[in-house]
Amino acid sequence: MIELGANSYGKQAIRLVKVVPEPGGHRVRDLTVDVALEGDFGAAHTAGHSALVVATDTMKNTVYALAAEHLTGAVEAFGTTLATHFLAFPQVRRATVGIREHRWAPIAAGGGPAADAFRRAGDATRTATVAATREATVVESGLEDLVVMKTAKSAFAGFPRDEYTTLRDAHDRIMATKVTATWRHAGPAVDWDASHEAISTTLLEVFAEHESESVQHSIWVMGSAMLERHPEIDEVRMTLPNLHHWPVDLAPLGGTNRGEIFVATTEPHGLIEATVRRSAT
Amino acid sequence: MIELGANSYGKQAIRLVKVVPEPGGHRVRDLTVDVALEGDFGAAHTAGHSALVVATDTMKNTVYALAAEHLTGAVEAFGTTLATHFLAFPQVRRATVGIREHRWAPIAAGGGPAADAFRRAGDATRTATVAATREATVVESGLEDLVVMKTAKSAFAGFPRDEYTTLRDAHDRIMATKVTATWRHAGPAVDWDASHEAISTTLLEVFAEHESESVQHSIWVMGSAMLERHPEIDEVRMTLPNLHHWPVDLAPLGGTNRGEIFVATTEPHGLIEATVRRSAT
Amino acid sequence: MIELGANSYGKQAIRLVKVVPEPGGHRVRDLTVDVALEGDFGAAHTAGHSALVVATDTMKNTVYALAAEHLTGAVEAFGTTLATHFLAFPQVRRATVGIREHRWAPIAAGGGPAADAFRRAGDATRTATVAATREATVVESGLEDLVVMKTAKSAFAGFPRDEYTTLRDAHDRIMATKVTATWRHAGPAVDWDASHEAISTTLLEVFAEHESESVQHSIWVMGSAMLERHPEIDEVRMTLPNLHHWPVDLAPLGGTNRGEIFVATTEPHGLIEATVRRSAT
Amino acid sequence: MIELGANSYGKQAIRLVKVVPEPGGHRVRDLTVDVALEGDFGAAHTAGHSALVVATDTMKNTVYALAAEHLTGAVEAFGTTLATHFLAFPQVRRATVGIREHRWAPIAAGGGPAADAFRRAGDATRTATVAATREATVVESGLEDLVVMKTAKSAFAGFPRDEYTTLRDAHDRIMATKVTATWRHAGPAVDWDASHEAISTTLLEVFAEHESESVQHSIWVMGSAMLERHPEIDEVRMTLPNLHHWPVDLAPLGGTNRGEIFVATTEPHGLIEATVRRSAT
Repeated sequence: MIELGANSYGKQAIRLVKVVPEPGGHRVRDLTVDVALEGDFGAAHTAGHSALVVATDTMKNTVYALAAEHLTGAVEAFGTTLATHFLAFPQVRRATVGIREHRWAPIAAGGGPAADAFRRAGDATRTATVAATREATVVESGLEDLVVMKTAKSAFAGFPRDEYTTLRDAHDRIMATKVTATWRHAGPAVDWDASHEAISTTLLEVFAEHESESVQHSIWVMGSAMLERHPEIDEVRMTLPNLHHWPVDLAPLGGTNRGEIFVATTEPHGLIEATVRRSAT
Repeated sequence: MIELGANSYGKQAIRLVKVVPEPGGHRVRDLTVDVALEGDFGAAHTAGHSALVVATDTMKNTVYALAAEHLTGAVEAFGTTLATHFLAFPQVRRATVGIREHRWAPIAAGGGPAADAFRRAGDATRTATVAATREATVVESGLEDLVVMKTAKSAFAGFPRDEYTTLRDAHDRIMATKVTATWRHAGPAVDWDASHEAISTTLLEVFAEHESESVQHSIWVMGSAMLERHPEIDEVRMTLPNLHHWPVDLAPLGGTNRGEIFVATTEPHGLIEATVRRSAT
Repeated sequence: MIELGANSYGKQAIRLVKVVPEPGGHRVRDLTVDVALEGDFGAAHTAGHSALVVATDTMKNTVYALAAEHLTGAVEAFGTTLATHFLAFPQVRRATVGIREHRWAPIAAGGGPAADAFRRAGDATRTATVAATREATVVESGLEDLVVMKTAKSAFAGFPRDEYTTLRDAHDRIMATKVTATWRHAGPAVDWDASHEAISTTLLEVFAEHESESVQHSIWVMGSAMLERHPEIDEVRMTLPNLHHWPVDLAPLGGTNRGEIFVATTEPHGLIEATVRRSAT
Repeated sequence: MIELGANSYGKQAIRLVKVVPEPGGHRVRDLTVDVALEGDFGAAHTAGHSALVVATDTMKNTVYALAAEHLTGAVEAFGTTLATHFLAFPQVRRATVGIREHRWAPIAAGGGPAADAFRRAGDATRTATVAATREATVVESGLEDLVVMKTAKSAFAGFPRDEYTTLRDAHDRIMATKVTATWRHAGPAVDWDASHEAISTTLLEVFAEHESESVQHSIWVMGSAMLERHPEIDEVRMTLPNLHHWPVDLAPLGGTNRGEIFVATTEPHGLIEATVRRSAT
């Protein structure tokens, strides 16, 4: 016998820009929205019956239609509105809305921020995921594409050595990574913008200040601090590529590398993932 | 209390090319290998102790070192060799090796295939994932980046309509997608190459021949056929983006579109994911 | 005084798919079209007067509108139709139309090629550029994204050595590249498809067969052969990245590399560009 | 007769990171360097003689070797050092060095900027190109990947209409673009950093403040201002894609779009290129 297992469907990469008139000028909201539904969709697969299949084109329309009235605050709130909307279809058991917000900052002009001209800040993308069922709504916030580097206070030493190990202990290496971090909110809505700002600041400050023994260690130190300082969250997940910066051997070129000259690489790269959470006990 | 949850680490994007001398000429093997380990790595996180942390640089070296002797057959076999190798470290509980193989075909020259000149075939990437613990080894095979299109026998109609639905029923639409498919092997090693070839052929033939009522339906029809015809596998997973091809309205331009002219789009796109499997009973 | 220099404008990345019914089944044409105009557009810049500025949106519409009737043969012919069309605007001095054609091949099913199911061949993209003025039309054909490799008959030796040279002579190295080649047609229309097929075959055959002393040498050998064997063209331009494949030193890992194990790299890469042409005399 | 035409070769994507100790902490320089040579390389092509072909591997080594001592100031100066170095080979007629500098900013931590932790600023890349012959050195500075948007003061109207024109006049549209701008220095070295900062500021301020009648008009207005305010440069080149933001028609969805809700698109896009320069007279 053959049966259907886990399945979901939806629309990805819905690109939405909203220009909001505010007292001091425009505010630009620039989102990429993904919608995914799970529920009573077995017959769509096994019998080709689409009677319950909310069209992904409808999902896209819904995002634009609801943005006019409901995209007034944080992406976590807009995501909750959207996810809840899709639960109105009885065949939907879980609606998951993922949002990435691309940040635009007013251009400085004429002695102050322009009212209607903006520059896209490329230094990180804010993310939110809302997964709603009729029983519960789980909100996760996060950020991605945050590229950071430590030029000191980073080591990796004492690791096991076998016949294939050529890496030497490093007590002072560069650590560079592109952070993807997600944190889960323990309870209902908070001031999403303030919370995001504060947690991102903790992540960055601890990244800067801690003495790293490895990328694994760094995840723990950052994640622990985020949980300790921010009671509104109960779990942090991080995915950190280790974007190796190798010292260039200048000796064959007649020079000496005093820890200054590196070749930046992307392939291959380490990849370290971990979850840090409040324990049940 | 704060604790460590799920975690893993490894090396990604290890780029390996092996040139194998064979009677009729060279054979090119071109792999991208990812290695990930799980196990007793808690102290690396919480205490910054790296004594058990096999360096990801060592993983990379191991891939190259073992390729000389052990990359002689299918990627599933090489992946098994690698995963098993890493289990020799007692702190490793699970080793997962993912391999993508990029196919090169001899260039036709001088009346036959060249012995030492190759062209990269870009029409799909073969994949394999081996996840080994001391208790069991799970081998999955698959393919990705297989871009296919049906220009007939594809419909999507009868879906629910609400205030935000503008899509019309389509009884004859283009369906285009980039297939990512993975199938899990039920038992021990088979003739991996022959199995991969046969299962890929089934996937393509059924894609071509079936009457699709939706992408969901197509996954079921393809996945079911793969399981029915190939007893060596017990589960198929597919991720199919719906890469919309919209008919261009030529009426405002003084023309008529007889179902011939389309605009190909990538954003936004549908995304349909499902698992089809043998049932336990 | 400040003045306007060289300028052009147009629409890029117009994605057009045409499904053509033919006796044996459908044929899929999949193009990415770029249009650029030069001419009397000074006032658009210096005075902000758009009266002569053909909207790029109109260019896009024109591509779709003319495709219905005029995309019946080779992209060189369709490009000529488009470029000529834009010359009907008196303010246009030169219209340049670039087309990339993405190839789809019928899926094999049921004992033969499917009539209505296709697989995208990713092994090269056919290109054409038509630059038309009222005095002349220049047609260039070509291909891009053709990834090829020589595993023998490739050398690079005898190059000059200075204090910063560490590369050793190689008499048997891998040469891998992603070919971008363009050839200019000397005269009016030929059988574009047959010409493209024949010239591409020459390029590939010579790539496979020649003894390469360097990438520069390879361009010359291939380009010369293309000109010698194909009188319809009078100039060949090639851009060849040198995608280095470095032998892995297995000695520190206890092994020996008999010219079999390589690491494939993309950064940094060589880049070699040259034009080969018929001389005026 | 067949002859060699224009040709050049070099190394691209040399990734160099230099960590510079300064009184207040580290400074990170992160460059991608491209080197290209032209000169007496005919025999390399036509005869396969590599005796004059400076290896691209040597170019890469040279970049790292000279960075230790010479990457102390602006990329324009380092590029000049590199280009001049390659002119020491008598067979080199022109050496062109292109540099992109990726900016890293100290992370704020503990009440001030961290001494050794950085965040990559993704909001633009500074560029420089130095083309040196024995007769002259031409230095161009610029920036790329600067994504900006005007949410007011942007129009496009009064353009010609033909049978394929459906675009309506827009007196208040969004204009979004990703700026690539290059400016040529008229004379010898200036304070490169100060000049770059000032010219970039002019570009951004004028972008924000001007009333745009079209992208063509915007290039002229920005370029003219850059030339007027900065006597050290004599030519500005800009390439501006028009990244269309289309208003969403909410009427079929029961809503009204008051110029607030847009779909951001990338395909197809306009592309406008122009040079603005000081006239000879």
